[in-house]
Amino acid sequence: MKIARFSSAGAIHFGILDGEELVVLSGDPMFQGFDTTGERVPLAEATLLAPSIPRSKVVAVGKNYRDHVAEMGGDEPPAEPLLFLKPNTSVIGPGDRIVTPPQSSQVEFEGELAIVIGSIAKNVAADRAGEVVFGYTVANDVTARDLQRTDGQWARAKGFDTFCPVGPVVETELDVAAATLTTTVNGQVKQSAPLTDMVHGIGAIVAHASSVFTLLPGDIILTGTPAGVGPIVAGDVVEVTVSGIGTLSNPVAAARP
Amino acid sequence: MKIARFSSAGAIHFGILDGEELVVLSGDPMFQGFDTTGERVPLAEATLLAPSIPRSKVVAVGKNYRDHVAEMGGDEPPAEPLLFLKPNTSVIGPGDRIVTPPQSSQVEFEGELAIVIGSIAKNVAADRAGEVVFGYTVANDVTARDLQRTDGQWARAKGFDTFCPVGPVVETELDVAAATLTTTVNGQVKQSAPLTDMVHGIGAIVAHASSVFTLLPGDIILTGTPAGVGPIVAGDVVEVTVSGIGTLSNPVAAARP
Repeated sequence: MKIARFSSAGAIHFGILDGEELVVLSGDPMFQGFDTTGERVPLAEATLLAPSIPRSKVVAVGKNYRDHVAEMGGDEPPAEPLLFLKPNTSVIGPGDRIVTPPQSSQVEFEGELAIVIGSIAKNVAADRAGEVVFGYTVANDVTARDLQRTDGQWARAKGFDTFCPVGPVVETELDVAAATLTTTVNGQVKQSAPLTDMVHGIGAIVAHASSVFTLLPGDIILTGTPAGVGPIVAGDVVEVTVSGIGTLSNPVAAARP
Repeated sequence: MKIARFSSAGAIHFGILDGEELVVLSGDPMFQGFDTTGERVPLAEATLLAPSIPRSKVVAVGKNYRDHVAEMGGDEPPAEPLLFLKPNTSVIGPGDRIVTPPQSSQVEFEGELAIVIGSIAKNVAADRAGEVVFGYTVANDVTARDLQRTDGQWARAKGFDTFCPVGPVVETELDVAAATLTTTVNGQVKQSAPLTDMVHGIGAIVAHASSVFTLLPGDIILTGTPAGVGPIVAGDVVEVTVSGIGTLSNPVAAARP
């Protein structure tokens, strides 16, 4: 089931994607279930929004694809998932502009699968991770590569406003083992990998993150990026696709001086 | 003016500290001003809570006291404030237990002055920082020093649940230039420094953080720790005092196995 959050005729709703229509839900399905209002909205008349805005945090995993570790000049991926945080103020939705800040001259895309947490979670065992996962969406872990290098800590380089596009929908029943991730810039393929290339899988990531932080409903976990990362500049359009979920498309713009 | 958030007789209120009493406010002063209900609650009958729970983030500044940079084996403090993030799920209040996690065998205190943001803030000039600051409180940037070293990224080491005690009150009119910070463990002084020892002052920190992140009302910025950091273990009581605000006291306990 594909769940969208969208605005239509001035109001914000959740809905279930059904072909070219959205079946309107009576509330946030994470908290209020899947009751429908009886209305249907054509997809063409809806503006899709970030399907989840975390009340708390975006947790992210670094160095989780072997070939990306190599392209960044690294050696072995870490034995445990390497965690970092992106603030909820960095989250934008499908179609929203990624704004490159004046502090950076090297902003890069990183296409990723994102886990959407559905319930309060602490110390969840890897084999029970599914119980706290609401579903999966697509994310772009936008990174100011130059500032990542100079700061050492990644909070600034990965935390700018607009640096966490997510969407277009949450798929509640993704077969992660069968899915592939593809990133294009202006239509040119830059990243392409099966999700099975992840070093640490969904269970291990949820177990590790929830052994540190209490995860709250709506929190998002980015699962790392495969090889092929590269620059984006104003005027570009970057699209991340996870098969079985959909395509997250965002134009790039420069901050006003 | 010293503002507390507290529970009393099963309800949560904000109040103005007046000697040994709290003058009860009719709402959250950050959003609803300083109207009082006419009630007064004896301080002895109130349980003080974290005076602010960020809706978004705790921003923190690393390496902001020259003598702490030296004790960590570093050379010069960074030219710009070095930012990192702690999640809002790490925030606890005065008297709450700091819980040392099983993953770490070296949990340390870091006493700090904390800025409480009062309004939506982006690209604030240093000399106008006061316009977005609601007030100041005291914080302990609890850190798993061993994991900080092994991870490189600080999100896990500084982000565990209970690793961000804040309180006891927010002082809306602190004279930062006249204030000193003192940390004790079981009554023994471990850190003692004037806040003027900060490399980057309040204006520079707010300007820098707001040039990256949109800051939201209730967000907290920790301003760095002076020399003298050291371990805390179950059974200890750690107290951080900023003159003009008050003392933030927290016992330490081990996580249940």
